[in-house]
Amino acid sequence: MEKLIGAAVIGQSGGPTAAINATLAGVIRASLSESGRGAITTLYGMRNGIEGLLDGRLIDLSAAFRTPEGGADEEKLALLSQTPAAVLGSCRKKLPDPAKDPAFFENILRIFEEKNIRYFFYIGGNDSMDTVDKLSAYIATTDYALRVVGLPKTIDNDLPGTDHSPGYGSAAKLIATEVQEIVRDCAVYTVPAVTIVEIMGRDAGWLTAAAALPRITGGAAPDFVYLPEAVFSTQAFLADLRAAFEKKPNLVVAVSEGIRTENGTYIGESEQSGSVDVFGHKYLAGAAKTLEHIVKHEFGCKVRSIELSLPQRCGAHCASLTDLTEAAAAGAAGLEAAILGASGCMIAIIRASEEDGYSVSFETADVRKIANKERRVPAEFITERGNNVTDVCLEYILPLVRGEAPVTMRDGIPVHFTFD
Amino acid sequence: MEKLIGAAVIGQSGGPTAAINATLAGVIRASLSESGRGAITTLYGMRNGIEGLLDGRLIDLSAAFRTPEGGADEEKLALLSQTPAAVLGSCRKKLPDPAKDPAFFENILRIFEEKNIRYFFYIGGNDSMDTVDKLSAYIATTDYALRVVGLPKTIDNDLPGTDHSPGYGSAAKLIATEVQEIVRDCAVYTVPAVTIVEIMGRDAGWLTAAAALPRITGGAAPDFVYLPEAVFSTQAFLADLRAAFEKKPNLVVAVSEGIRTENGTYIGESEQSGSVDVFGHKYLAGAAKTLEHIVKHEFGCKVRSIELSLPQRCGAHCASLTDLTEAAAAGAAGLEAAILGASGCMIAIIRASEEDGYSVSFETADVRKIANKERRVPAEFITERGNNVTDVCLEYILPLVRGEAPVTMRDGIPVHFTFD
Repeated sequence: MEKLIGAAVIGQSGGPTAAINATLAGVIRASLSESGRGAITTLYGMRNGIEGLLDGRLIDLSAAFRTPEGGADEEKLALLSQTPAAVLGSCRKKLPDPAKDPAFFENILRIFEEKNIRYFFYIGGNDSMDTVDKLSAYIATTDYALRVVGLPKTIDNDLPGTDHSPGYGSAAKLIATEVQEIVRDCAVYTVPAVTIVEIMGRDAGWLTAAAALPRITGGAAPDFVYLPEAVFSTQAFLADLRAAFEKKPNLVVAVSEGIRTENGTYIGESEQSGSVDVFGHKYLAGAAKTLEHIVKHEFGCKVRSIELSLPQRCGAHCASLTDLTEAAAAGAAGLEAAILGASGCMIAIIRASEEDGYSVSFETADVRKIANKERRVPAEFITERGNNVTDVCLEYILPLVRGEAPVTMRDGIPVHFTFD
Repeated sequence: MEKLIGAAVIGQSGGPTAAINATLAGVIRASLSESGRGAITTLYGMRNGIEGLLDGRLIDLSAAFRTPEGGADEEKLALLSQTPAAVLGSCRKKLPDPAKDPAFFENILRIFEEKNIRYFFYIGGNDSMDTVDKLSAYIATTDYALRVVGLPKTIDNDLPGTDHSPGYGSAAKLIATEVQEIVRDCAVYTVPAVTIVEIMGRDAGWLTAAAALPRITGGAAPDFVYLPEAVFSTQAFLADLRAAFEKKPNLVVAVSEGIRTENGTYIGESEQSGSVDVFGHKYLAGAAKTLEHIVKHEFGCKVRSIELSLPQRCGAHCASLTDLTEAAAAGAAGLEAAILGASGCMIAIIRASEEDGYSVSFETADVRKIANKERRVPAEFITERGNNVTDVCLEYILPLVRGEAPVTMRDGIPVHFTFD
């Protein structure tokens, strides 16, 4: 493969995570290494993903992170890595079909030519890989040399072609940690009570499964865990609670926001959740809130619903060291692969055989097999009754939450990196 | 004061916090010290507070935490300190008036006599201090020698007579940390959006005020902060948002669950929040959810409401080292004060003059001046427009969140202490 020298652009796309900036840091570090500098003249960051490329909002990351000696400013990179969300900003733009709207891509090509951009990195999930796929498909129809590489990022862990995705481990660690704290909190009173914790993951239950992790670390886990991959039956759920009440007064249940009935209706969208707000608009109450009302009606006991909400995906203060380390390594692997000629691919994480303990390596995977596809929790990870996850599932997740990422604090509050 | 030798009981009461077990650890450690052992023959823990005393559910804490050499098992105490909620269990029992129901207190007296209990420690907030008050008032009418000491605990920071209360610093740290992460998360997109974060504190806004802490540490804070101490006007709130939208597209607002209108109606209980659930029951939507609908109706933009909920009060993984250290010291101070003769009091934290930096000492305060009373955020801590807190307020809070309490982990998940 011919050596390609020129500028590079990188963007962050889709939902924020605690690890997406660590991947950016990995790419920046690698671009300022000896081999990186041999190919990449300048690394630009796109503000708000592809949107920033289109309207010229680029930031010179090489200049921002280069030391006077020409290497990478490790102190700045460490701050960047511990910063949640997406420091470049994000977007949710879906690119048009290159065959139907070539003008859109011709415009991008002009921008590439103008700045001699030869490398395009995009950190994101399923939708972002669609951007990688379309851009690399279009470029293949031109004689412009550009290498397009996707870097995986999703708290949902639903990207196919990779053992797991950066961002998931940290979200899983926060969920396991906070749900265990909730279980402790709810156990202090003797009055019958049910606490329902709603966890992100509309179609894939990976995040909800993580709530059960303390079960295999000697800690406290929810009594029941319901994933979208198992059909949710309100009757079976109430029967589960009734049986559990025979043994203890305080029950904690973890549910995915995406749990649905046999006919595919989301619990949070079912008629049972139909409320009307002050303006007369019907609104959807969410899975946990809907179940709160059902359980209260059935048992008449104290019921509380909790949505873990945004803190799940931006909990950098509780990030997994394994996750952030892999996130940065995936970024570096992407840059190195691109320099060696890879394009139209996503960096995938390969887990080594468990017999030698947990370790990973990185490969390139064809992005056409990844874009717009989802990897869901397999049947063997869910108990037969569909009301919990199996130990095999937890053994898959556990290595991903190991280790605590160091956090620089100022006066007791985490310090975040910004360009401002 | 005559030296009093006998057993002691300790209970935890009211809502869980991240620091209540640290106070318990402080009492246990002090009871096993040389001076402690000289007065206290056995330290019993009441399961579920006064309820466990009444029905004989006592646990021998001296035996549970004593090393073979007779000292305190520091490893166990460290685990206890990092465990959230209330390891002895809690209760919300209000004692009767001793004058009206002497039989209730005579029953307790018999239990004390039976086990030669001479010291009574109760860790809790305003309601729990009512128990301390009533019990010491009753005992004063008998010739039984018992010393009754309250140990402060409340995330709400609303106990009078003390500069602040153990439990508040850790909750404040978690709130500041997670709200800052939410602010970062919400800033990644360019579309107009409002995120409303609801924080605990029905009558006192101390917890909500903590959301603004990153403003003085160089971080990112919410655009507006509304406390229950300032009258909430929906029109003024919408005007605040409208003005802020002129400058940036993404707004984050922190509101106390207890914000209320001029006539005292809670926003979450106002007619504006009136929704009906599937069973036709009217339910209260909470302050943030109510405001979500109002803002959506007014601006038509993306609006999200987030209740930080239980994780605020049990976030031991993000505990303040200052808070846990003071919590344990308050426990030890209570035990030492009781041995020296104190009774009918609560341990209060006294803040030293700020000129020499932050430091505290402990005193006893008359529990009759504390029980059932609340300390609210003073006017000088709130901006004139009532839509934020002042720097003076943040300078009061900041020392309380400083330092990170160490957490022993197992496979990436915090380890908690239990008696099981």
